[in-house]
Amino acid sequence: MSKCLVAQSGGPSSVINATVAGIVKANQMNPLYDRVLGGLNGIEGILQERFVDLTDMSDEEHRILRQTPSSALGSCRYKLKRSNSEDFEKIFAILEKNDIEVLFYIGGNDSMDTVAALSEYAARNNISNRRFIGCPKTIDNDLMHIDHAPGFGSAAKFIATTALQCWLDVNVYPASRKEVFIMETMGRDAGWLAASACLSGIVDILIVPEKPFDKDLFLSRVKECIEQTSKCFVVVSEGAHYLDGTYIKAGEAKNDLFGHAVLGGAGKTLEQMILEAGVCSRCKVQDLSTAQRCHASEQSGTDVTESYRLGISAHMRSANPAFTGRMVSIRRKEGEEYDTEYFDIEADQVANYVRNFPENWLLPDYRGITEEAEKYLRPLIQGSQALIMKDGLPAYIRPYYMK
Amino acid sequence: MSKCLVAQSGGPSSVINATVAGIVKANQMNPLYDRVLGGLNGIEGILQERFVDLTDMSDEEHRILRQTPSSALGSCRYKLKRSNSEDFEKIFAILEKNDIEVLFYIGGNDSMDTVAALSEYAARNNISNRRFIGCPKTIDNDLMHIDHAPGFGSAAKFIATTALQCWLDVNVYPASRKEVFIMETMGRDAGWLAASACLSGIVDILIVPEKPFDKDLFLSRVKECIEQTSKCFVVVSEGAHYLDGTYIKAGEAKNDLFGHAVLGGAGKTLEQMILEAGVCSRCKVQDLSTAQRCHASEQSGTDVTESYRLGISAHMRSANPAFTGRMVSIRRKEGEEYDTEYFDIEADQVANYVRNFPENWLLPDYRGITEEAEKYLRPLIQGSQALIMKDGLPAYIRPYYMK
Repeated sequence: MSKCLVAQSGGPSSVINATVAGIVKANQMNPLYDRVLGGLNGIEGILQERFVDLTDMSDEEHRILRQTPSSALGSCRYKLKRSNSEDFEKIFAILEKNDIEVLFYIGGNDSMDTVAALSEYAARNNISNRRFIGCPKTIDNDLMHIDHAPGFGSAAKFIATTALQCWLDVNVYPASRKEVFIMETMGRDAGWLAASACLSGIVDILIVPEKPFDKDLFLSRVKECIEQTSKCFVVVSEGAHYLDGTYIKAGEAKNDLFGHAVLGGAGKTLEQMILEAGVCSRCKVQDLSTAQRCHASEQSGTDVTESYRLGISAHMRSANPAFTGRMVSIRRKEGEEYDTEYFDIEADQVANYVRNFPENWLLPDYRGITEEAEKYLRPLIQGSQALIMKDGLPAYIRPYYMK
Repeated sequence: MSKCLVAQSGGPSSVINATVAGIVKANQMNPLYDRVLGGLNGIEGILQERFVDLTDMSDEEHRILRQTPSSALGSCRYKLKRSNSEDFEKIFAILEKNDIEVLFYIGGNDSMDTVAALSEYAARNNISNRRFIGCPKTIDNDLMHIDHAPGFGSAAKFIATTALQCWLDVNVYPASRKEVFIMETMGRDAGWLAASACLSGIVDILIVPEKPFDKDLFLSRVKECIEQTSKCFVVVSEGAHYLDGTYIKAGEAKNDLFGHAVLGGAGKTLEQMILEAGVCSRCKVQDLSTAQRCHASEQSGTDVTESYRLGISAHMRSANPAFTGRMVSIRRKEGEEYDTEYFDIEADQVANYVRNFPENWLLPDYRGITEEAEKYLRPLIQGSQALIMKDGLPAYIRPYYMK
């Protein structure tokens, strides 16, 4: 019997480990594979044969892994280029040497491109016993062909919860103290995360990349809020920009290895705008920064369960010896009550595309989101699980790459 | 039968409402007062006779109030000056008009000064039927004559939890990616909040106001960490400063109405230092900002219970007609197991002092805290309560000042 390998890539999330836990548990329930190996630091570690054995994970470790945020197997930003045949040859040699038939790769659209590239290579070279299966994750919720990406629901729940809590904080002082509170979320190209703050019901102004930024309109809306209630609660995506594509954040944005702009600072720029225009003399900025993708205290029950089941579903589907180059996915069923079904799709249909927040889900003048948007978002933040605690803090798995 | 009045002041916390809930519930269990009024926006609202009636709060509202962060009665930063006799005369006239015998005032050391000033005024003018009782709160934990301040434990739990989660996040990339993560906490004069991050067990470098900042030592420690593990996790108090008192944060600090410096930005300044010195080319800063004092998702069970009991204890002690000008407080009992007892102390012994983090609880070279410090801190973050949820988010009381 051959082995399978599971690895993680891209930016972590609060529930990405639940997919690993699902694959391991599925193999314990139905041992399709002799061993379940964990590849450390994604493709980068696989190229170095850095593996751990997860096959016999205890049920306690399994439960703690499900609640542990960030990538317990480590991640990478290594870009597997189709032109670099050396990398491909090396990977296939390592898989053969270790008798690994299936690689489950958990990640976002860059990772789905890796899954597509590896399976194309296998097909081109008539290699049928090395297969590649994608499991989706991204807090950004910008993946195509999935109702919502695992990881998003928990990030959305953290953002909406924190928005509500900060709003309670910023309002405590009397009306004589006029104040603007600006919360900045992640979201390079898509406004899903910022929009989810509106689930708190307290957002006055929402600025997302899908709606070009108009400084005058923005300032007049802030002025209106301050005049009406003396406070104004603004939520902005880091990737929000003007009509010509210039980011709100002042100064030049650097690019990362994938050619994506490194953002952050939109909130501070809006603060400066408000102060300079004299619209309000008091501003506070809360940049949610790293916390929004790892603050597992707000793991959504729906999110962690679906992420877990995607792992199980991927393992089950892999029993079909022709199953490769595909991503497991979630579809929302028709009907009033929230329910989902699992399916799979070509990984290259997901790779390198971005799904935006629908423009017709945005209210005019930055006033937030429509009821339809809320109806889509609300089920994704439902439920929570009782956390296993240790010494007053949540119990988390020590990352496997540190063991 | 006369009335009592409860009001809140200063910066909010995650458990300041539990003290209000305790006073209201105590009066339901033993109606010393005909009505329990809530004063809106502290002294400032009391001067405007802005009251709500809390006497008959339902048990459900009471339970939700206990889990609601921030000041549900609103707050103020109004400084009652002893020289301003007009304010004193007005307050006493309003109390008399409304037949209010006792004011419970929940706040930090500025608020205890208000309690002291009002009771001094009463004594000086032979007014025995207006009494003033202080209930402590401050996330900063810098109050004198109390083992720890209500609000601190929950903030500490949030900070330690978030530190642990962010550390898991920052470590996911391979050793080839060297990175410094800097978390900035509140703490103008005292390092309690920053120090509590060390409960996570992952802090490499801790910079607090109690230990003068030495740039060379700091940079050499960062270098050491990066060389050893390729990552470095730094926690810094906003109020950390050089030996001569200059704050780490570059530029001039503004002062607030109380003459306290408005801080924030120490993390960004450290980042700049590291980048300029070429010690590491990649830095991330997470400023916990407002979230650390309102993120009630991490309410510590110990904290919320003690805050609640302080409210009950204050109400009970107020049955003594000579009880005025005092603050209810908590003392830690001797012994291995954590346990506390309640007592009271002159409010003016608390007012306007600051209790620092003990210097002998700091390890040399910014290496964190001693075992003794951990032994003090650990019990304060224990326990949590099942939250009442609504639509996927924690259920919170709509602030009374908005009703």
